[in-house]
Amino acid sequence: MKTRAAVAFEKAKPLTVMDVELEGPRAGEVLVEVKATGVCHTDDFTLSGADPEGLFPAILGHEGAGIVVDASPDVTSVKKGDHVIPLYTPECRQCPSCLSRKTNLCTAIRATQGQGVMPDGTSRFSFDGKKLHHYMGTSTFSNFTVLPEIAVAKIREDAPFDKVCYIGCGVTTGIGAVLNTAKVEPGANCIVFGLGGIGLNVVQGLRLAGADMIVGVDVNNGKKQWGERFGMTHFVNPKEVGGDLVPHLINMTKRGADQIGGADYTFDCTGNVTVMRQALEACHRGWGQSVIIGVAPAGAEIATRPFQLVTGRVWKGTASS
Amino acid sequence: MKTRAAVAFEKAKPLTVMDVELEGPRAGEVLVEVKATGVCHTDDFTLSGADPEGLFPAILGHEGAGIVVDASPDVTSVKKGDHVIPLYTPECRQCPSCLSRKTNLCTAIRATQGQGVMPDGTSRFSFDGKKLHHYMGTSTFSNFTVLPEIAVAKIREDAPFDKVCYIGCGVTTGIGAVLNTAKVEPGANCIVFGLGGIGLNVVQGLRLAGADMIVGVDVNNGKKQWGERFGMTHFVNPKEVGGDLVPHLINMTKRGADQIGGADYTFDCTGNVTVMRQALEACHRGWGQSVIIGVAPAGAEIATRPFQLVTGRVWKGTASS
Repeated sequence: MKTRAAVAFEKAKPLTVMDVELEGPRAGEVLVEVKATGVCHTDDFTLSGADPEGLFPAILGHEGAGIVVDASPDVTSVKKGDHVIPLYTPECRQCPSCLSRKTNLCTAIRATQGQGVMPDGTSRFSFDGKKLHHYMGTSTFSNFTVLPEIAVAKIREDAPFDKVCYIGCGVTTGIGAVLNTAKVEPGANCIVFGLGGIGLNVVQGLRLAGADMIVGVDVNNGKKQWGERFGMTHFVNPKEVGGDLVPHLINMTKRGADQIGGADYTFDCTGNVTVMRQALEACHRGWGQSVIIGVAPAGAEIATRPFQLVTGRVWKGTASS
Repeated sequence: MKTRAAVAFEKAKPLTVMDVELEGPRAGEVLVEVKATGVCHTDDFTLSGADPEGLFPAILGHEGAGIVVDASPDVTSVKKGDHVIPLYTPECRQCPSCLSRKTNLCTAIRATQGQGVMPDGTSRFSFDGKKLHHYMGTSTFSNFTVLPEIAVAKIREDAPFDKVCYIGCGVTTGIGAVLNTAKVEPGANCIVFGLGGIGLNVVQGLRLAGADMIVGVDVNNGKKQWGERFGMTHFVNPKEVGGDLVPHLINMTKRGADQIGGADYTFDCTGNVTVMRQALEACHRGWGQSVIIGVAPAGAEIATRPFQLVTGRVWKGTASS
């Protein structure tokens, strides 16, 4: 069949909106009509050429929602007419990573997904007989897309597509970092660095988890009202702090008898390795945990004194929770 | 009273074995006759002058065992004649850190301990009317020493002093890192970097925890037989690996269907920041945890690509577990 799609033919060039060829679903696959898609900074990162794993030509997009319009006969978990959200971190439920019960990062599907193809090693998209790559296994910048059955999550039919599409990436990444990676408990003091799409969803997750202090840090004062809409309790603009940011944050998080200060949990949602270090060092001595969510530029490294960890801070990360 | 002690008058000078003045225990304190003491590398580190927090003159030593010979009348948890091990990380049980139930690093006692004095702010040791500093709150390089009541742990009377003194530092640090910090579960694949006093006790802890593969890494082949006595299952000398150490270790830890490889838990017991990075990067994608135990030189920093954490590895540390 033909479908209208926004094609990324080359890095750092505008997308081309055009008709492309889409093969129907093969074994274990479904055809989805994409009703809405978000545009995530990761799409832009890949399009820019900075993503070392970026492949071209490709159909980008990984934050969508739509309706199953066809399915291979062996598909059992969804059927035509089901409303679904495509998943770029699906779980095959059979590989050592899935069976470990310690991670959601399926390593079986990752191999073919990273090569821009379906699990059987081929692409469903083409143009003029030439292969177009799938992107993150989802390619939601297309009116129709083919996905493995395990890569769609069924949702309620009354959920509005233009809202729930964000659940495909930003919402789950932010809330998952709080609930699954950090496992924040009620009453915790928390700091969120960067109030973009991920950071605001971390704030929302902290509110869900019952955090006490939810400090948002951003260089843009315009983010203050956005943070507050999602549950932020305090806002800090590092440019307006008279002095170093870390001691300022540690002072802010002192409470009652605890005059040591530091957050129980911090989250980096900036991708900036200097901020990642600040996020770790703003953690409470003895137990503070810092979660890295942002994607850093290729080659960039994080650093700290090992003393920070030896005195009880924990440094972890999450890709998609 | 007088007591014989090995006094560190100045950094980088030999200890002076001599009689010094020791005041009796004040409120909440006990007098202990030290029957045996280990010499830990940390004592040597402080004596060398490299420890930025080192104070002189001082009576070093923190790995001892002895008998309570006197106690202030308000002391209730131990009595004269009790056999005890001095604790350099005691818990006051009242400060925010102790009451957090998330850390064993009491911050109340740390303040005075770091200044080389008892919790009331004064020293019990002197020579010619001049104050001698306590060291790590224990000063076991003395025939008698005064300790806060909370800083002694009662032990069995048939435990040999010259063996159990090591429980005061090396044994608990190594085993605690395994059982309390990493919480290693039966069947885990683990790697221990550095087979000195701490590393061997990590190996012993892993055996207690029921770890499957216990890989010891050391540049000294003489450590192989020591590791095996404590429960090590595999030995790697980095100098004899033809190529990079991390891929070699990841290959070693592949098993069955899991051909990703990497350890479930790794432990750095070297204090070398390059090894700390190798220990993190030898962890399994998705869930591997690396624990830093070694003390690094002042100013040294650890570094890695944030991708290591974003894909599920966890970096933590322990001072004394």
